[in-house]
Amino acid sequence: MGKNKMHSSHRHYEDENEWGCGSWFEYTVVVVLASVLLLGSLGLTFFWVIQYQGGFAWREQPSKQFNLHPVLMVAGFITFSGFSILLYRICRCCRRIYVKLLHTVFHALAIPCVAIGFLAVLDSHNLAQPPIPNFYSLHSWIGLVTMGLFAIQFVFGFFSFLILLCCEGATASFRSALVPIHASFGLTTFMLAIAAAVSGLTEKALFSLQGRYSSFSEEGIVINTIGISLIALAIVVGYILQRDDFRYRAHILIRTGDL
Amino acid sequence: MGKNKMHSSHRHYEDENEWGCGSWFEYTVVVVLASVLLLGSLGLTFFWVIQYQGGFAWREQPSKQFNLHPVLMVAGFITFSGFSILLYRICRCCRRIYVKLLHTVFHALAIPCVAIGFLAVLDSHNLAQPPIPNFYSLHSWIGLVTMGLFAIQFVFGFFSFLILLCCEGATASFRSALVPIHASFGLTTFMLAIAAAVSGLTEKALFSLQGRYSSFSEEGIVINTIGISLIALAIVVGYILQRDDFRYRAHILIRTGDL
Repeated sequence: MGKNKMHSSHRHYEDENEWGCGSWFEYTVVVVLASVLLLGSLGLTFFWVIQYQGGFAWREQPSKQFNLHPVLMVAGFITFSGFSILLYRICRCCRRIYVKLLHTVFHALAIPCVAIGFLAVLDSHNLAQPPIPNFYSLHSWIGLVTMGLFAIQFVFGFFSFLILLCCEGATASFRSALVPIHASFGLTTFMLAIAAAVSGLTEKALFSLQGRYSSFSEEGIVINTIGISLIALAIVVGYILQRDDFRYRAHILIRTGDL
Repeated sequence: MGKNKMHSSHRHYEDENEWGCGSWFEYTVVVVLASVLLLGSLGLTFFWVIQYQGGFAWREQPSKQFNLHPVLMVAGFITFSGFSILLYRICRCCRRIYVKLLHTVFHALAIPCVAIGFLAVLDSHNLAQPPIPNFYSLHSWIGLVTMGLFAIQFVFGFFSFLILLCCEGATASFRSALVPIHASFGLTTFMLAIAAAVSGLTEKALFSLQGRYSSFSEEGIVINTIGISLIALAIVVGYILQRDDFRYRAHILIRTGDL
């Protein structure tokens, strides 16, 4: 094992040297851009809700309770999930098991955000006077599909890549065969979350701004900017994930035996 | 070349034999499902517009001219583009150059659809009494980003993978390095088209149905079903593209020299 580790660090050194200045520059630019967009879209949603929608409340003010919905859904489905996906490109030198655990923690942090965000919109509909029906809009249907896919991915990932580690050797080929499926559905879930977000933002803009939306009101521009930053995220995250060079070094991982 | 061809068909035979019954079943199911969804979403959009929105017209009736927009955009960005992407998984035994040309033709067919669809919405806004402003909504911003990415991909793909074939040998490694970038941005463009579509459908449902949308009106269900069939397409196409087994056989292509 000691020999393996030495070999592994030697490979690290070699591999880093293989990357030219251009690759490092490209890697840094796209990872920084993705991080700025992940935090920026959440910050902008927070700003929008505080500045234009009157901030937060719980059940005593259902219309303000609603405001928890966009902020928590962007936090859970976009920011936490996005960073969780990018961990496999950002933590390029840590042991794979640590990256896996951190990936699980980030996704686990997304769960309460999504759950409270979901509860907030249900409450704000049910407690409104008169009550607003649930699950009639395309946004809510897409949201349900996204939550379902997220839950399947979490449970599937947890069992396949963490629990099955108990029989490490016997399940290695099975687990490695599942990686591309989990990764592909992970990216698809992220893209669906963005589709859910842009349909939700469109809904809220039309309900809230009505005629003012078409006169390029300040709030309308802020809402559109949140949507476009999510679209930019789809492009940047899609680009980062396809770049094989940015990938966690699978050949080292297999050698050190913590796949 | 004759020897190469013989070698190539021998490999085809071998590879097909390697696929078990399960792989063929999975391949058939997902490709048929994707095709049904690609045609079904277009058919359903057509049905919605004819049945609930009064059908089509040109400039004499701007409100009906608008109806060309959803149908042509779904035809161009979803159906033609989707089949064009899937060609690389459907035509698994043709020569690569024919698949490439067909891919170009399908994308070229999408161009007039998108152009006329874009003109239709501009006209329907500008000729309305009073005129409706353009490019104020999130849907229109996402649509512009998607059209831009589509145009870049088309021009980039045309020059890189068809024009550069004039110096086939000299550009082979350059072209093969560009393939994953073109493929990744292609999938991203398809996903953005779906995001644009669901935000557009949400907008139209709220404008057109208003209070009836929340009472689960028939038209609302039809609009949501179009949106959900597009979301299902995102999942199915994302799944098909990540399956390496479904990929066009690159190792044969390199041997026969028509990369």
